[in-house]
Amino acid sequence: MKIKVIKIGGKLIENNTILASLCDHLSTLGEAFVLVHGGGVMGSQLATKLGVEVKMHEGRRITDAATLEIAVMAYAGLANKRVVAALQARGVNACGLSGCDMAVVKSHRRPVKDIDWGFVGDVDEVNADVLSLLLDNGAIPVVSPITFSPAGELLNTNADSVASAVAMGLASKYDVELVFTLDKAGVLLDVNDDSSVIPTITPALYADLRSKEQIHSGMIPKIDNAYKTIEAGVGSVRITSPNNLTGGTVVVK
Amino acid sequence: MKIKVIKIGGKLIENNTILASLCDHLSTLGEAFVLVHGGGVMGSQLATKLGVEVKMHEGRRITDAATLEIAVMAYAGLANKRVVAALQARGVNACGLSGCDMAVVKSHRRPVKDIDWGFVGDVDEVNADVLSLLLDNGAIPVVSPITFSPAGELLNTNADSVASAVAMGLASKYDVELVFTLDKAGVLLDVNDDSSVIPTITPALYADLRSKEQIHSGMIPKIDNAYKTIEAGVGSVRITSPNNLTGGTVVVK
Repeated sequence: MKIKVIKIGGKLIENNTILASLCDHLSTLGEAFVLVHGGGVMGSQLATKLGVEVKMHEGRRITDAATLEIAVMAYAGLANKRVVAALQARGVNACGLSGCDMAVVKSHRRPVKDIDWGFVGDVDEVNADVLSLLLDNGAIPVVSPITFSPAGELLNTNADSVASAVAMGLASKYDVELVFTLDKAGVLLDVNDDSSVIPTITPALYADLRSKEQIHSGMIPKIDNAYKTIEAGVGSVRITSPNNLTGGTVVVK
Repeated sequence: MKIKVIKIGGKLIENNTILASLCDHLSTLGEAFVLVHGGGVMGSQLATKLGVEVKMHEGRRITDAATLEIAVMAYAGLANKRVVAALQARGVNACGLSGCDMAVVKSHRRPVKDIDWGFVGDVDEVNADVLSLLLDNGAIPVVSPITFSPAGELLNTNADSVASAVAMGLASKYDVELVFTLDKAGVLLDVNDDSSVIPTITPALYADLRSKEQIHSGMIPKIDNAYKTIEAGVGSVRITSPNNLTGGTVVVK
């Protein structure tokens, strides 16, 4: 059975019109999928309103106890339920999950080295049985980036990492395509020209494009990460815009 | 199969020590259950911090759009995930759900008569198949009081009503006991004496106690409501303290 694991950014959830358009598209995919969403600026906005200082280190957020509570409220609460309700309204039997729910995404708190990132989790294990129980019963899991440690700590987690772990976890049961959405039409030869999408990237083409410096540097970690998930059993990785989930660029073996 | 549907107030979730004690007790019940939780003061506290005015009418909250967002964050997000994580840490395979998740609790927005209650839902339907899918696979549903309308509106709902609807919905599949927790040991003959618990209330005893005015007036709507759910198929209704979920007062046919 084919399945897509689709990562969307939190920005798509904040605006009702954009969310509606995305959910219209998702409801016509005609294929089972798992949605993994980020939180985007919802968390930062709530922190600002609550007067909680957003602490950053090298562009990445430090999650102290107050920030974790905000992340749980904004991501596991508002963002997750907004997406689920919008999908339900379109006949998609969505089921919101955070990592703690049926222990679907277990993680551990990132060890303190130079920096204490606070309540940030790195994923250890995705429970594919839980996801397939839902999928096999016609439900569409909608996964927030709040994971948990077996000791019962809720942990804020990078949504791209959650999506990759979910895709790799499902690869033993399904033919998985992992889809990353971004605000471009795909991987572009010319970053300012949406019509320059590269439809398919193979290892040979990737090596060639890199040697000619024709891949935008921001794309390199995304494609490297795509190949890591493909090595772990994921069939292909698609990089595309959220309104064209079957288009864009597909990264293959 | 026997099952308890246990309603707990939000107050039990706010304090870590109290939550830990409740979850210790739940993890040793040795019986499947569904937990329905309220939000308590978490919502009001968040509203105050955010400078959102809490609007009341005759002691009941009016849920405007800003208040609904707060309720979703506090109840479907923080409260729900705190309980789930605390149960998971004790080996209980909890799964948090709000009404929108797999459409488990459908409601409609309360019609405007004298008062517009805003985004408040009255329950129409509980999807018992969803709950039994989870229960039959060893999961323990933890249900927040955020329900949804088929049009995709999230709605703030009275948690006692959600618990009653869940119990009635499960009655066709299981032998259900509905448990309401309160800060007394049960229904008391003397409201100031916790040792005066009435262990069992039958319709005859209830009529007798009422005629003698030996039932505290605050208990009358609770017991009336208990008999409504019993008429709808629930086996019994227990009214007890959260640290004694097999004790207190049991209301029977």
